[in-house]
Amino acid sequence: MRPAGTRNRTFPQRQETILRAACEVFVRDGFHAASMKDICSAAGMSPGSVYRYFASKDDLVRAMIDSDRARWMAAMDALPAGGGLLAALEALAELGLRDLEDRGFLNLWVETAAEAARNPGVAVRLHDSYSSLQARLASLIADAQANGSIASTTDPGTLSCLVMAAFDGLILRATVDPGLDARPLTRGFLDFIGRAIGARTPARGASSAPRASAKKTSGRTRPPGRKARR
Amino acid sequence: MRPAGTRNRTFPQRQETILRAACEVFVRDGFHAASMKDICSAAGMSPGSVYRYFASKDDLVRAMIDSDRARWMAAMDALPAGGGLLAALEALAELGLRDLEDRGFLNLWVETAAEAARNPGVAVRLHDSYSSLQARLASLIADAQANGSIASTTDPGTLSCLVMAAFDGLILRATVDPGLDARPLTRGFLDFIGRAIGARTPARGASSAPRASAKKTSGRTRPPGRKARR
Repeated sequence: MRPAGTRNRTFPQRQETILRAACEVFVRDGFHAASMKDICSAAGMSPGSVYRYFASKDDLVRAMIDSDRARWMAAMDALPAGGGLLAALEALAELGLRDLEDRGFLNLWVETAAEAARNPGVAVRLHDSYSSLQARLASLIADAQANGSIASTTDPGTLSCLVMAAFDGLILRATVDPGLDARPLTRGFLDFIGRAIGARTPARGASSAPRASAKKTSGRTRPPGRKARR
Repeated sequence: MRPAGTRNRTFPQRQETILRAACEVFVRDGFHAASMKDICSAAGMSPGSVYRYFASKDDLVRAMIDSDRARWMAAMDALPAGGGLLAALEALAELGLRDLEDRGFLNLWVETAAEAARNPGVAVRLHDSYSSLQARLASLIADAQANGSIASTTDPGTLSCLVMAAFDGLILRATVDPGLDARPLTRGFLDFIGRAIGARTPARGASSAPRASAKKTSGRTRPPGRKARR
């Protein structure tokens, strides 16, 4: 059994505790008003301990962005081979919908975007994260084009950017509309895109497998908890 | 000739001066750090004068959101009848691209989104603005479906939400990537959507008219200047 305090935790566990506490404080106060002192209190750790892991608020923001990127990259890596592009997009949308239903995530997401607008270091990290995820999604699209499972010849980079941008726009919409039911909208987006790319249903009935897989992946690869993304 | 000071300005002109000043201060300092005192200084007006027009920072944010909504609504009203949905989307994209090339606008946009995440009054106003613009765009789509100029039967509300969300996502991307060339991406989005909806080129060669019209409209209906939106 693990003790309730932080004393006997491993390095990654302590990192996770601090990140989780930082997310709470950022959501509550905003990045600018948040202080390292408040984050230490929320983590139940001394400043000396916290600074061993993160030297500044910027370090914490960058770690949050990296954690989000790792979560999405793992979800894409976990997609079953041969499941088809549309099934892959559906699995990723399912993961995204969980974000959309999480107020803490939404607030943290726009806080991070606002910080990026003012802070070039944060902007570069967020840009790197977007670029690598978009390239990964583009490679899934290029594969589907190469093996003939979609008819679309749209440039994979453009199509992956459109998919990610539409989802980011939905995040913003959910932020300003707490009553938004994003599920039918997401369903409608996927139907529209599916028809547009001329997706063929994979022969092996893999449509339900990636969804379950993404859920499992999401639980496994979200180190700083439900609020620790972007 | 109009005097250089603010003394002889009309009510709308003074409103515009204050809004423009507020935008500058919000972009520079962020909403939270910005003070009414700084905004008065930037506007070159006394607090007594400014408070006659706007009682609070929240009032200013709401006025900025209303101004942005009016600008887009006017652009949609100015679209030539019978120009076709794709030409309409192209004209609106041209207006949107000008926003994407304006750092002040981008920063103000994410500031407003972050404020909406924390401030229910701002969230409601932004939600209202989105809803009315989306409904207007949906009515253009429904018209195109009704007169047979597009083949798509996708729900107009879903399609208009997808278009607006994708554009909002591009705004975010431009915010974190100052070197982003949004024009080819926007072109790619429009090509993809155009093919997906099965848009037919209008017979009367109206494709260049709405673009010029939107530019003109944008100049006419942007009261607080290039930085006074959302």
